[in-house]
Amino acid sequence: MKLEQIETPAALIDVARMQKNIARMQAKMNTLGVAFRPHVKTTKCLDVVRAQIAAGARGITVSTLKEAEAFFAAGIGDILYAVSMVPAKLPRALALRRQGCDLKLVVDNPTAAAAIAAFGDQHGESFEVSIEVDTDGHRSGIQPEQQTLLDVGRILHENGVKVGGVMTHAGSSYELNTPEALAALAEQERAGCVRAAERLREAGIACPAVSVGSTPTALAARYLEGATEVRAGVYVLFDLVMHNVGVCMLDDIALSVLTTVIGHQEDKGWAILDAGWMALSRDRSTSRQSHDFGYGQPCLLNGTLLPGYVISGANQEHGILAAARGDPQADAQIEDITQHFPIGMKLRILPNHACATGAQFPEYHAVAPDGSSVEWQRFYGW
Amino acid sequence: MKLEQIETPAALIDVARMQKNIARMQAKMNTLGVAFRPHVKTTKCLDVVRAQIAAGARGITVSTLKEAEAFFAAGIGDILYAVSMVPAKLPRALALRRQGCDLKLVVDNPTAAAAIAAFGDQHGESFEVSIEVDTDGHRSGIQPEQQTLLDVGRILHENGVKVGGVMTHAGSSYELNTPEALAALAEQERAGCVRAAERLREAGIACPAVSVGSTPTALAARYLEGATEVRAGVYVLFDLVMHNVGVCMLDDIALSVLTTVIGHQEDKGWAILDAGWMALSRDRSTSRQSHDFGYGQPCLLNGTLLPGYVISGANQEHGILAAARGDPQADAQIEDITQHFPIGMKLRILPNHACATGAQFPEYHAVAPDGSSVEWQRFYGW
Repeated sequence: MKLEQIETPAALIDVARMQKNIARMQAKMNTLGVAFRPHVKTTKCLDVVRAQIAAGARGITVSTLKEAEAFFAAGIGDILYAVSMVPAKLPRALALRRQGCDLKLVVDNPTAAAAIAAFGDQHGESFEVSIEVDTDGHRSGIQPEQQTLLDVGRILHENGVKVGGVMTHAGSSYELNTPEALAALAEQERAGCVRAAERLREAGIACPAVSVGSTPTALAARYLEGATEVRAGVYVLFDLVMHNVGVCMLDDIALSVLTTVIGHQEDKGWAILDAGWMALSRDRSTSRQSHDFGYGQPCLLNGTLLPGYVISGANQEHGILAAARGDPQADAQIEDITQHFPIGMKLRILPNHACATGAQFPEYHAVAPDGSSVEWQRFYGW
Repeated sequence: MKLEQIETPAALIDVARMQKNIARMQAKMNTLGVAFRPHVKTTKCLDVVRAQIAAGARGITVSTLKEAEAFFAAGIGDILYAVSMVPAKLPRALALRRQGCDLKLVVDNPTAAAAIAAFGDQHGESFEVSIEVDTDGHRSGIQPEQQTLLDVGRILHENGVKVGGVMTHAGSSYELNTPEALAALAEQERAGCVRAAERLREAGIACPAVSVGSTPTALAARYLEGATEVRAGVYVLFDLVMHNVGVCMLDDIALSVLTTVIGHQEDKGWAILDAGWMALSRDRSTSRQSHDFGYGQPCLLNGTLLPGYVISGANQEHGILAAARGDPQADAQIEDITQHFPIGMKLRILPNHACATGAQFPEYHAVAPDGSSVEWQRFYGW
């Protein structure tokens, strides 16, 4: 199908950009000498994940058991479920392992560790579990120097659970925007995770995997000594948040929302689009960054940026395209809004956050350089 | 299935509250002497819509052609597609009408009006179109006194398209929070839409339907003389935004997200939940209102509010439950966070915006007063 024929709103993936992003990350990981385990929560799309694996990824990271089930059913067996496990979810994890899936779990507390050990013992299953380490204080995990780290390690180790390793995610990297700060956080992430592994080893607990990563720290890391693998997700498509963090250019962003002009408010200088927040998502993460992109950056259908314009507002199925504040070129064109953006005109919008925007769609339209496209299914739910 | 058995995260509908909300709105419309046409974009769920129709609703309002197709396939024929039409979507609208669906379209500009007339002429189909009126400046529509109103009316009327009426949506009602301001906006919405109808009639164009509404203005309206029907959507479930607007109590909110405690950061007083923004949505609309509820209001599994706590942050699959700032009772309990919210504990979170949160889930769990539940499917996409 040609771009002009796709019904709007629709989620487009520029396949050439995606392949460039995949190649860039994989080359970086190869240079650093670590394995790469992409986080597939960004796309939940088998076509994308197959491209990541074809480029050299070893195994995948998932954020839900539904992702684990879907990708295992498609033949991908090496899966890290990177959200701290709770007892009620163990039956689904067990079912996957019984089917032959090399599903690895994560915990960051003694209660869950003991529950996994007891459940495994009860069902004759030897789970493999990584311990989540907190290297930047932004969310979950045990700090490298905490006693709890060894407590959890011993509960697992002494009760028949294989300690697969340690893992961390320096998600506070999204709040930074200089190469120096990102490199420093990448080193903090690496050093903290390696230190946790060393403490476990000193306590007599094998700790083979040392898994770190976020898109910004992965791309900023200068060396990863002691780490065995890196995880990252959003790099595959990139987005405006990553642009503001400084790890991609606007023309690296592979995801856009195709939309149609459906109306105008001439006196306000608005064009009304059929992409509201249901298509763009409610993600406004760039509002806290150096450049606030509203609900997204408009482009022409051919991808040419419209730097003087912004998606200034969104209702469920209506988006408002307006002049970016203070842009003299765009201001001068306000009176011509109906001429510049006539009814039926198609535009593309670069999203703030590719993970959130993609999740609003049942499928991507994967667009080739010649403008032809095919549908790539994605899924949602838990 | 019992509440305790539902896997998390999950979207729960309290059926008794939903039925109360439906009955309240329908009773109000009956008193005002207008037909009620619920906007089904909030739930996209046939079970909910059947309950609205059983209570007296006449026809439905949809925000996408996919909703129109799905509900028509389920036997609902009287459908208003309340987003301004563009030429590229006419073939899908035609297909629905050819199957017998009484699909009504909306336009607010001469270009689209002419395109509908030409397309209808070409295909021998007499479309019915309502003209969208702008009564509060928040989005789409033609102001009642604008010449464009008559231009659009004439283009339709003189080219074989039935003018079904006028319709408006005073969406700026979401920004208000007093009964007086809401009643004044409801009157502005009514008066503006009735005025637009009168102008069309004076120009010799029949204008049978005068359709107004938003949840706040529908509930605040004191009289609706001249209006023939009201549309509203979120009232069926309500949410924290509507609570802040002042049109529902917290215990009217029928939607909640079921979640499990998966970890802690004791020194920060955090409990980590398995409901992140993928479950709660990125909607932070209460941040601009009198009471900022973060990513939602936590409750115990039985629905008891936890007023000292808030969902203070969210990543894709992680939510952070923390003490609401300045709450002395909750502050005193920070050290006991692991005791108050142990690993595996289930909680419910009232959402900021029911339309956005529901859209994150493939199904609702409809919970009866005895705690038993059934699954109600919902759909997404366009």
